[in-house]
Amino acid sequence: MTNTGPGRPRLTKQRRPGPTAAAEILDAAAELFTTKGFSSTSTRQIADAVGVRQASLYHHFATKDDILAALLQGTVTGALAVGDELIGRPEPAAVRLYALLTIDAAQLVSGRWNLGALYLLPELRTERFTPFRLERQRLRARYAELANLVLADLGEDDPARTGLPFRVVETVINERSDAESDGGLDAVDPTTVADAGLRVLGWVDVAALRDPAAMLVSELRSGN
Amino acid sequence: MTNTGPGRPRLTKQRRPGPTAAAEILDAAAELFTTKGFSSTSTRQIADAVGVRQASLYHHFATKDDILAALLQGTVTGALAVGDELIGRPEPAAVRLYALLTIDAAQLVSGRWNLGALYLLPELRTERFTPFRLERQRLRARYAELANLVLADLGEDDPARTGLPFRVVETVINERSDAESDGGLDAVDPTTVADAGLRVLGWVDVAALRDPAAMLVSELRSGN
Repeated sequence: MTNTGPGRPRLTKQRRPGPTAAAEILDAAAELFTTKGFSSTSTRQIADAVGVRQASLYHHFATKDDILAALLQGTVTGALAVGDELIGRPEPAAVRLYALLTIDAAQLVSGRWNLGALYLLPELRTERFTPFRLERQRLRARYAELANLVLADLGEDDPARTGLPFRVVETVINERSDAESDGGLDAVDPTTVADAGLRVLGWVDVAALRDPAAMLVSELRSGN
Repeated sequence: MTNTGPGRPRLTKQRRPGPTAAAEILDAAAELFTTKGFSSTSTRQIADAVGVRQASLYHHFATKDDILAALLQGTVTGALAVGDELIGRPEPAAVRLYALLTIDAAQLVSGRWNLGALYLLPELRTERFTPFRLERQRLRARYAELANLVLADLGEDDPARTGLPFRVVETVINERSDAESDGGLDAVDPTTVADAGLRVLGWVDVAALRDPAAMLVSELRSGN
């Protein structure tokens, strides 16, 4: 038994990474949802994996859907904040889109669990997940907005391409999933993804975007 | 009651498209797996949706996993046959890759159910689905082979790009899934996908590939 600070001692030693009990619950749920499946996982199994009682779990999340909603939200909120900020930045649209692709791909690559694999669950079509779907739509719209500016800079008018950069960033999810099932795939490199996200629009000299986009990424990350 | 030909009359009128009872079972299962979820669907529900007894269903498929395996196989077999044939064709690699992307995207777009959404199920990591995973890996390898030829024709040596065209074709699955959840998205055009699959490699003049690739596609489809 370990007393991890103020409040009641835990029943068991901390099993999960995370600064709070809620974060530990989310980590355990993310593992179970992505490796066993969402509908095959019970809140009881999540509580067991964290080492807490089910009653404690319900104190943080009233339902299993609430846990899933929190996990999904976490895959979008950061990228959306970046997308919102990029709209007002003075850099050329191609640099801004490259920066968004880099940050979003890095986030999808580095999460401990491949949560994007849950985007295709039919359960997400219910009303409970409308707030998540709307937030993801807002992120998609930010990508489209930047993509349209890039297309305009290229002098191209091809609305069919507008949605492609957002789709390219999501390919990270499939790449991770295949790497986890089959092994032997190389780790996904956010630069490859960002290059591809610009190339699908018809942008040729992607190498020239890397340095200015890297500067923009570090400014955004340091909050300037 | 309708007697649809030789053999025993059906219990009910045919509810599902398909030339055989097995095809009807697959159609019903595809709908349930993609709209309710694989693990939330029972073989009983599938039998009910077809209008047959569970015993008849077991006559065709011993387990629910067998039904899923047959459905998944169906999303890969045709594209793999095309990929195998393209390897020996005399056309330039870019035209061959464009043709493969077009045929595969058209198949992913036009299936009655968005079966690619099942690729990310954790259940597929079990041994039962090894044959499917291997066949999908063979298809991925065909894409990579053609992509490497295209990169060589471009005088580029960037192995990070090799896997991208296969990932691009799979974006059809996410696009369909979002269209079905949220509505309002345009239908996916296989030409847009094929353009993007070449552009990610660094190919610029994709428009020049369309006519020769369309000729190749019609030759492949007519079996010449």
